[in-house]
Amino acid sequence: MVPMSRMKHGDLGVAMARIGIIGSEGRMGHALVRAITEAGHECAGGVDQGGNTAILAEASEVLVDFSSPAALETNLHAAIGAGVPILVGTTGLDERHQAALDSASGAIAVLQTGNTSLGVTLLAHLVREAAARLGPAWDIEVVETHHRMKVDAPSGTALLLGEAAAQGRGIELSAHSERGRDGHTGARERGAIGFGSLRGGTVAGEHSVLLLGDQERITLSHSAEDRMIFARGAVTGAAWLLGRRPGRYEMPQVLGL
Amino acid sequence: MVPMSRMKHGDLGVAMARIGIIGSEGRMGHALVRAITEAGHECAGGVDQGGNTAILAEASEVLVDFSSPAALETNLHAAIGAGVPILVGTTGLDERHQAALDSASGAIAVLQTGNTSLGVTLLAHLVREAAARLGPAWDIEVVETHHRMKVDAPSGTALLLGEAAAQGRGIELSAHSERGRDGHTGARERGAIGFGSLRGGTVAGEHSVLLLGDQERITLSHSAEDRMIFARGAVTGAAWLLGRRPGRYEMPQVLGL
Amino acid sequence: MVPMSRMKHGDLGVAMARIGIIGSEGRMGHALVRAITEAGHECAGGVDQGGNTAILAEASEVLVDFSSPAALETNLHAAIGAGVPILVGTTGLDERHQAALDSASGAIAVLQTGNTSLGVTLLAHLVREAAARLGPAWDIEVVETHHRMKVDAPSGTALLLGEAAAQGRGIELSAHSERGRDGHTGARERGAIGFGSLRGGTVAGEHSVLLLGDQERITLSHSAEDRMIFARGAVTGAAWLLGRRPGRYEMPQVLGL
Amino acid sequence: MVPMSRMKHGDLGVAMARIGIIGSEGRMGHALVRAITEAGHECAGGVDQGGNTAILAEASEVLVDFSSPAALETNLHAAIGAGVPILVGTTGLDERHQAALDSASGAIAVLQTGNTSLGVTLLAHLVREAAARLGPAWDIEVVETHHRMKVDAPSGTALLLGEAAAQGRGIELSAHSERGRDGHTGARERGAIGFGSLRGGTVAGEHSVLLLGDQERITLSHSAEDRMIFARGAVTGAAWLLGRRPGRYEMPQVLGL
Repeated sequence: MVPMSRMKHGDLGVAMARIGIIGSEGRMGHALVRAITEAGHECAGGVDQGGNTAILAEASEVLVDFSSPAALETNLHAAIGAGVPILVGTTGLDERHQAALDSASGAIAVLQTGNTSLGVTLLAHLVREAAARLGPAWDIEVVETHHRMKVDAPSGTALLLGEAAAQGRGIELSAHSERGRDGHTGARERGAIGFGSLRGGTVAGEHSVLLLGDQERITLSHSAEDRMIFARGAVTGAAWLLGRRPGRYEMPQVLGL
Repeated sequence: MVPMSRMKHGDLGVAMARIGIIGSEGRMGHALVRAITEAGHECAGGVDQGGNTAILAEASEVLVDFSSPAALETNLHAAIGAGVPILVGTTGLDERHQAALDSASGAIAVLQTGNTSLGVTLLAHLVREAAARLGPAWDIEVVETHHRMKVDAPSGTALLLGEAAAQGRGIELSAHSERGRDGHTGARERGAIGFGSLRGGTVAGEHSVLLLGDQERITLSHSAEDRMIFARGAVTGAAWLLGRRPGRYEMPQVLGL
Repeated sequence: MVPMSRMKHGDLGVAMARIGIIGSEGRMGHALVRAITEAGHECAGGVDQGGNTAILAEASEVLVDFSSPAALETNLHAAIGAGVPILVGTTGLDERHQAALDSASGAIAVLQTGNTSLGVTLLAHLVREAAARLGPAWDIEVVETHHRMKVDAPSGTALLLGEAAAQGRGIELSAHSERGRDGHTGARERGAIGFGSLRGGTVAGEHSVLLLGDQERITLSHSAEDRMIFARGAVTGAAWLLGRRPGRYEMPQVLGL
Repeated sequence: MVPMSRMKHGDLGVAMARIGIIGSEGRMGHALVRAITEAGHECAGGVDQGGNTAILAEASEVLVDFSSPAALETNLHAAIGAGVPILVGTTGLDERHQAALDSASGAIAVLQTGNTSLGVTLLAHLVREAAARLGPAWDIEVVETHHRMKVDAPSGTALLLGEAAAQGRGIELSAHSERGRDGHTGARERGAIGFGSLRGGTVAGEHSVLLLGDQERITLSHSAEDRMIFARGAVTGAAWLLGRRPGRYEMPQVLGL
């Protein structure tokens, strides 16, 4: 018999999932609760600092972790104990954390990502493809716009898109970046990937990758109206993890890429 | 021994080609001459109405035909006679012409296309991919801008991009188009592909495909600074045809798609 | 002595206002409450269908009315009775309503508008100026994008911008519109103002006016992230009405235009 | 009797002018000849290094000077001698040159400018107006895109637009610029005017000024398809100078601003 929670629903034919939230109190936690409901899934509950992750894991079919790097090992332990997959969206992970994720992926399905937006995930794929096909005679520029409070430039997503372009070309991004153009820059380096950052207002996040050839141009852009899209993508990713065999997965796989 | 004309040159490692132009007098003919020279190829000569295409074919390694539907059979005959491949960019072909192309492709390599721009060819590929991955919950719109003298709407390229989106979704474009919105339209049909056309100034051609989801958007655009890009793409396609075995080919293959 | 509510605050040096909301229950009503608080004003209360507007007027220094055409006369009566200005953002008003507004403006300050966004108000001014300076050799196009649920095209704001362009040129918009281009349209009419409408996703509202000349183009755009901007503009307009002498006012005056 | 050369023609009702070109050999010189013909004016001839400017001036009704700073004094002398107005588009002028222009303007009409595009001239005016009306709660960013060979950033036109924004706000641009953002920049400074520069392909020149408020944005843009627009604007400016009394003039006046 097919349990209710495994029945197909919605457009994508995904199963309904009972999702547990680690890091449920912050802005992202609240967005996740809303995204889970919107998508027709069920929220198994949430824990925050000091909460009992092991109990949450037992009550969940899949976990979503947007807590902190410090809590990662405890969270993986709980997921392994309950035998449930986990999507980790925490940022600021170092090599030690990556090793812990690798190790956990021997026992359960693990998807770790710095950007859970499906739109950005697809855009990175399209940028890689375009850069590979067009070759170095086409110049590549990445420009992004964010709200006035953002403290760093370029954005992490802009760098992710630059990486995708560099992969498409088969070059190292770090050796071919042009950032912060100002003053007498000289002509553009052939094969360079340029970055520009605009700041102002309350813009949630806009990214454009320009591929500029002789007399023609291709522009590939993503625009976010609000940060809810990251919660939605995380929930789609979590539902996609249901029933996957142990291993490490990536966001592009959620889109079938 | 490798003949000079087969030696590799340029970025893409393509061989230098001796290219013959059928339809050499018009705007496109002149642009082709310029594009052949720019790319380091050699112009084998050109013919126009009443010219001897068979002699041109003998002097050429590959033919490019931007003449007229009426001349197509003669041109194919000349290419077959000389055993050289042919790129056909003539528009307004009907089923009878397509049959002639199929038949010729038993003897020589034939590439027929309504749009020789490499940028547009790539964009169509990216649109198909994006439409396939995102699914029908994302609305698709195609908007184009052309100079004030253009007499039809949407542009042929806009329809080509709409077709690519429809293919990605696995639907028929004709059954799902929304064109010429004006007045009380009602809410957008789920799964529809919408078209909008702007006209003015001297714009050579701009096309954008918008994929609009909940709170996020992907935009894939192409902009042409002048019509020279069509000549350049035709020349790249012609050079790519050199040495291909008999058969029918398409522009996406030139980009390795 | 200067009462607290008249003391200057904020960037624009506007007085704090005690604002009463007519039509307080709907989406716009809630947005107004938030906008009043954000701007450092005070909410005097709100009424909805069947509420006592006269009592609200007595408690307010200025009224904002987003209720319905049917309630307009009662609302104006209450404002006159209390001697307070009123900003009317209700849409769907006919000539009879305009006459009532004219009549009320003999006794109190009245600002009626179909669009309370300060950004759109400024954009319309810039469009009028640009159209006037550039002359009819520059083609004008208005393109707008809205969410998938919108049922009419072009948007009211697109028409407002088209009107501004027509005024700048000294022509009648109705006699020079090109809407819903599809099929064999022929070349663009000299002096025409074109409209295009895109629909999809959850887009709150984007408008661009293109002025297309020979080899150059000016684009003037407005983009709304959410509908809160209409509430904010209404509140700015209401505060600006404080202390104005009786008469009819318009949004551009709020920006000093 | 009205001489032929004074008869009205064209849209703007401008008189036909007999225009002499100083600096006729370069790219700009050739563009000017074309623009003069296109606009229905007459080319009185041209001189280049070592040519006799005085004789050209006698044959002309107005002079256009795109030669070099070194030739400026000789050119002004020739214009004064013949009693004809002069438009000076030479860049790289210093204070001594400005003094010479001031002195010449006692005898003839003189229009000096670093940017002869009518579109850019209008855009700067709109930017000044928008910046003045919206106030410092709206963040201002200027972003420009140019071809891969351009050696400096931001472009001169971007700085001109930034100046216009600063004037609208009543601030000094130099004290409020944010250029070359890269790395840990901290949050945006209130009141700052930011600049970003993209480089690639063969882009003739695109400039956008973004005014970013809370949840809304105004974007004012100019796009040039080719550099011919500078020649066209210079010719329009020269024709406008015909019959003006002695004095110094600026491009905005040509548009009636």
